[in-house]
Amino acid sequence: MKRYSITEPTLLIDEARARRNIHTMAEKARCSGVRFRPHFKTHQSAAVGEWFREAGVSVITVSSVAMAAYFARHGWRDITLAFPVNVRQMEEINRLGGMIKLNLLVENEATLGHLRRRLDHPVEIWLKVDTGYHRTGVWYEDAATLQALARGIGQSPLMRLRGLLAHAGHAYQAHGRVELEKIQAETISRLRQARDRVADIGAGPLEISVGDTPCCGVVHRFEGMDEIRPGNFVFFDVMQWQIGACGEEELAAGLACPVVGIYPQRKELVIYGGAIHLSKERIANPDGNEVYGYAVPWRGREWGPISRWRYVRSLSQEHGIVRLAPEEVADWRVGDLVVILPVHSCLTVNLMRRMRVVESGEWLATMNS
Amino acid sequence: MKRYSITEPTLLIDEARARRNIHTMAEKARCSGVRFRPHFKTHQSAAVGEWFREAGVSVITVSSVAMAAYFARHGWRDITLAFPVNVRQMEEINRLGGMIKLNLLVENEATLGHLRRRLDHPVEIWLKVDTGYHRTGVWYEDAATLQALARGIGQSPLMRLRGLLAHAGHAYQAHGRVELEKIQAETISRLRQARDRVADIGAGPLEISVGDTPCCGVVHRFEGMDEIRPGNFVFFDVMQWQIGACGEEELAAGLACPVVGIYPQRKELVIYGGAIHLSKERIANPDGNEVYGYAVPWRGREWGPISRWRYVRSLSQEHGIVRLAPEEVADWRVGDLVVILPVHSCLTVNLMRRMRVVESGEWLATMNS
Repeated sequence: MKRYSITEPTLLIDEARARRNIHTMAEKARCSGVRFRPHFKTHQSAAVGEWFREAGVSVITVSSVAMAAYFARHGWRDITLAFPVNVRQMEEINRLGGMIKLNLLVENEATLGHLRRRLDHPVEIWLKVDTGYHRTGVWYEDAATLQALARGIGQSPLMRLRGLLAHAGHAYQAHGRVELEKIQAETISRLRQARDRVADIGAGPLEISVGDTPCCGVVHRFEGMDEIRPGNFVFFDVMQWQIGACGEEELAAGLACPVVGIYPQRKELVIYGGAIHLSKERIANPDGNEVYGYAVPWRGREWGPISRWRYVRSLSQEHGIVRLAPEEVADWRVGDLVVILPVHSCLTVNLMRRMRVVESGEWLATMNS
Repeated sequence: MKRYSITEPTLLIDEARARRNIHTMAEKARCSGVRFRPHFKTHQSAAVGEWFREAGVSVITVSSVAMAAYFARHGWRDITLAFPVNVRQMEEINRLGGMIKLNLLVENEATLGHLRRRLDHPVEIWLKVDTGYHRTGVWYEDAATLQALARGIGQSPLMRLRGLLAHAGHAYQAHGRVELEKIQAETISRLRQARDRVADIGAGPLEISVGDTPCCGVVHRFEGMDEIRPGNFVFFDVMQWQIGACGEEELAAGLACPVVGIYPQRKELVIYGGAIHLSKERIANPDGNEVYGYAVPWRGREWGPISRWRYVRSLSQEHGIVRLAPEEVADWRVGDLVVILPVHSCLTVNLMRRMRVVESGEWLATMNS
């Protein structure tokens, strides 16, 4: 195994785990007969994209026009932009529409009007439906709006209505398989009800697309849907682990941080690794404290197991304060590395902008490298 | 005035306000006879650094080796690295030590030992003292450690002990001038007590350096210290405003975001602008909710006033949900711009990586552009 040195906060990716996570989800989709359109906002990396391609993936989801353009440059030819159309970016959207098969979301008349007037190339449209998360989308019971939008889409020669799409972001508030399966079932049921309402106007056969990692992570089979769009599962993170969407052995991203101070009386370490590396995403620990990541020992080629009593309790811009179990304070030295398993891997990848494969030391670039 | 278009989340800087903030702090330091060594971690920008130079600043503070190297490349010749020495970066530290007058912090024997063995060039050392924040530093009453470190520094021909330094980060938990003045007075008093303890071993004349924006923002005169190191004051932010460290007319940074969805029943907007633009730093609003930034109208050349009832209540990776006052929902259109005044401007600048001057549309690069 190649040796490499780590001098500053470095985002490590366990390639074997990430590839296994990809394979598991791809297999589950294949066995269920649904299209696998993974969300690439978690890794934002053409190199990691190739791991998906090797697992048979050819269609993807992204969350910004810039991300779509980046992956289009790297050979992806069928991309869903899973974010409400930003009408201020029509020029870039048209450029993309001329290059690839572009799939857009519509959820209101105003945006639809902009698209009707300003689209230059054919695109496929998904109606964004709110099935309970209340972030974006048409409420699934709002037949009048759903039908009006479907009619408006049908009137444009450049738009084809492909289906209905939802993101059950409220799954992140759930705990355990039973609750997650319930949310998944409710999401599908509500999307199908919305589809029935649209079908009343004769819109033709319409697909259903869903896509959060917690639900997609726990269910064994995908039923009642045509497409899944999970993204975070490639690396998972402490939030998914807390929800019960993955096991500890599936966590594939960890931030290696140098220890710069040890405070035996406080039973704390200070590390070089702060809010500009991890983000300030947090979860509640069983001891009642807020946790900004679990701290695990670095063993040179892999990281050690989680303890609920060893965690980042506070973050400044560049500092992290790690609370230790009392008996282990003497084990630590200034200059040691500690690995922080992030609460939200997507935000950590976005901040770090490049990653390093644990096994080889190889750097993986992202769109922001 | 030049016109420029904004198509995606864009960090706007009100140059007039930022220059006024710099001027005010520089003048206050000059009148008090203390050295002004501003922290550059807030703006991370050589261009903004020039605004400081024009205000007479020649010595600065940074929070990472990379930031020190960036500003050294841009002509800054006297830099304090206000972060515990990361012994894994001794090579880079030596490179810097050969280029500029480098000032380092010491707070433990282990790091001091590394410096003694591995430094190649003369550096000045500040003892980092904990005056109540409990993040890093030697507790101000711990005479034995303070004296041992001072002796150890004295034994190295490449290290000169310059003084004692503290950061009163607990000022961020305070409210209003009276509390902040009390923290400032306590910080100075504790640093002077620590200095008396070190003086007992005959360490020569030692300076005192303090540096948080809340305390430096409210006091009228700096007394009992030799150097101040505030940073955030250049742009301030909603957190400083909430603490009472600045007025609304001093807020110099705002994130312009396109409106992509309007939800009259929820009285909410969804904007293109999320955790990857603003960070997840938050404060508590008087209505009991968490706030990730106040939303103010954009008037083409400036932003409008804060309302406590118009704020970002939730952030995803790229989405922000803005809660509106009920009577104004009808005023908004898809495609409008709204300006979000960030909770923590340092983290927002770090995420955005470039800024745009409100008055001219000119782009300002940062070290991460």
